[in-house]
Amino acid sequence: MSVKIKDHAKQLNLSVATISKALKDSHEISPETKQRVFELAKKLNYTPNAYASSLRKRSSKTIAVVLPEVADSFFSLAINGIESVAHDKGYHVLIYLTHESFEREEAILKEFQSGRVDGILMSVSGETCTSDHVKEVIAAGMPLVFFDRVCEDVETAKIITDDFESSYNATCHLLKAGCKKIVYLATSSSLSINNKRMEGFKQALSDNDIKKNTNDIIPCTSNTEGNYEIIRDLLKKKNRPDGLIASVEKLTTPIYLACADLSLSIPEKIKVISFTNLQAALILTPTLTTVTQPAFEMGKAAAAVLFKSLEKTNYNLKKEITVIPSVLNIRNSAT
Amino acid sequence: MSVKIKDHAKQLNLSVATISKALKDSHEISPETKQRVFELAKKLNYTPNAYASSLRKRSSKTIAVVLPEVADSFFSLAINGIESVAHDKGYHVLIYLTHESFEREEAILKEFQSGRVDGILMSVSGETCTSDHVKEVIAAGMPLVFFDRVCEDVETAKIITDDFESSYNATCHLLKAGCKKIVYLATSSSLSINNKRMEGFKQALSDNDIKKNTNDIIPCTSNTEGNYEIIRDLLKKKNRPDGLIASVEKLTTPIYLACADLSLSIPEKIKVISFTNLQAALILTPTLTTVTQPAFEMGKAAAAVLFKSLEKTNYNLKKEITVIPSVLNIRNSAT
Repeated sequence: MSVKIKDHAKQLNLSVATISKALKDSHEISPETKQRVFELAKKLNYTPNAYASSLRKRSSKTIAVVLPEVADSFFSLAINGIESVAHDKGYHVLIYLTHESFEREEAILKEFQSGRVDGILMSVSGETCTSDHVKEVIAAGMPLVFFDRVCEDVETAKIITDDFESSYNATCHLLKAGCKKIVYLATSSSLSINNKRMEGFKQALSDNDIKKNTNDIIPCTSNTEGNYEIIRDLLKKKNRPDGLIASVEKLTTPIYLACADLSLSIPEKIKVISFTNLQAALILTPTLTTVTQPAFEMGKAAAAVLFKSLEKTNYNLKKEITVIPSVLNIRNSAT
Repeated sequence: MSVKIKDHAKQLNLSVATISKALKDSHEISPETKQRVFELAKKLNYTPNAYASSLRKRSSKTIAVVLPEVADSFFSLAINGIESVAHDKGYHVLIYLTHESFEREEAILKEFQSGRVDGILMSVSGETCTSDHVKEVIAAGMPLVFFDRVCEDVETAKIITDDFESSYNATCHLLKAGCKKIVYLATSSSLSINNKRMEGFKQALSDNDIKKNTNDIIPCTSNTEGNYEIIRDLLKKKNRPDGLIASVEKLTTPIYLACADLSLSIPEKIKVISFTNLQAALILTPTLTTVTQPAFEMGKAAAAVLFKSLEKTNYNLKKEITVIPSVLNIRNSAT
């Protein structure tokens, strides 16, 4: 720390004592000098704990929610769960969207190091493969709780659902309903949730003595048109699947569209299960069998844990791992 | 203004000149004195332009989006439009949700007076009947642009769609398709968008010499179960409607559910048009006729106007009123 302060002093032509006082926001230092010091500190990416904690003592009464998108009913519902708790506590909730971009996620977390918010709730982007950016913001003293999409190697509270089990159960349901060839439509392979769902799928096949095919897991993209092409191509093949598991909500529309275009009736020719909280599942024809995630409850639980850590000093976030189970809602698309 | 400054001086036992300099963040004034002045100014809800603009010079590189909810495809898409512009400009976007509560909206705007963000994009809550809270934040020097749901009496830039015309056209379409009794399912009566859509509906009836019934406009609530009951009761009546216009997306699911439960086939027994950007409109049975709003484009346009005002001093936001037309997408539910 002192090495860095000396660096500042040299560059600004100020004494180490002055720099140090400025960083502590001392009243002995003029606003202009503070400004110069803060600007340089920012440029050097230097956020001493004293400064950060002094900022945090001014408590912003604000928490941040960092998530990939809002055009997904899971995240909309999770936000409502978070806000139901935050509102009771008199806190504002700021929503930051990464749009599945690691670069944006990194930039957003960097900004929090200056103490703009009191705590963070986060669901990682589909591109996120490393976790240094998360570790840094936690090291700077900022409480952070993951929900749904987590970085496995970061030691902090995590609110997750039973992705492995619910995918396992969905697969077993399709097998019992008579499917001989099931395809798992995957999302980003760097996501914890995708990998657990994929493992649950594989395990169910293996436990039911189904030989795995090389092409029973198909990666999808992040855009609807692209996914429509992928699914249509898959369903046009001679040895097309008779069961589909959609790992994310945005695959539902292209699946139904492709089946309609190819006159493949659901569930007679092909059975479908989606991971989704889409309300319209009830009014699709046929009604959609869903793995319904406890989105509102997960948001609520994540916020509750974060507030515990904000209210109690030395509260250890690391110990909290909560699994709230999803529910398989069997409807006409998979009977 | 000077009266207020004199008030400050009296209370703090300081000269008017000192107060004035403090509010301008002058280097001649000590940080402690400034702090006292700012605190009192805050208490008096006094945000002189000089102070506000000095805060803004420290540019937060952040804009706020204040909107009722994200569990609606219009708002999700509008956010994407806003972020597409903000990202290019190197700005962060903070999303604040009012959950249709006026009280929350007021509290959020109040907070912006301290200069937390550089500008605001806003769509008002369903409870908002007055606009003093908006006028105050604008008077404090904060640029604000409305999109979709506006306060008619606030003079600032507004990005809207042609609610009157699109509702008029939807109604005419139902009449041409043979409907004899059309009901408009309304949302909050304090909303500009609802009232324009309602007027368009009424005008279309009147232009087609249809006698207005007292019960051809039915107010709905903000919860799905409540709306289901309202719609079911309506469709169980002897003189039930043969055409429905849903003024907001969240009415779609209860309409389809109620029709299914009462075995009223769409479009044979009843024709349906919804104001919605729901992607699932394409996979419903029958496919849903929609008034599709230019959500992404409206978000983009609102952000573009806001950035114009952030980049040019003395840019006059008042002149900008932009209407981007909606599109009637005729599908099987209304043929």
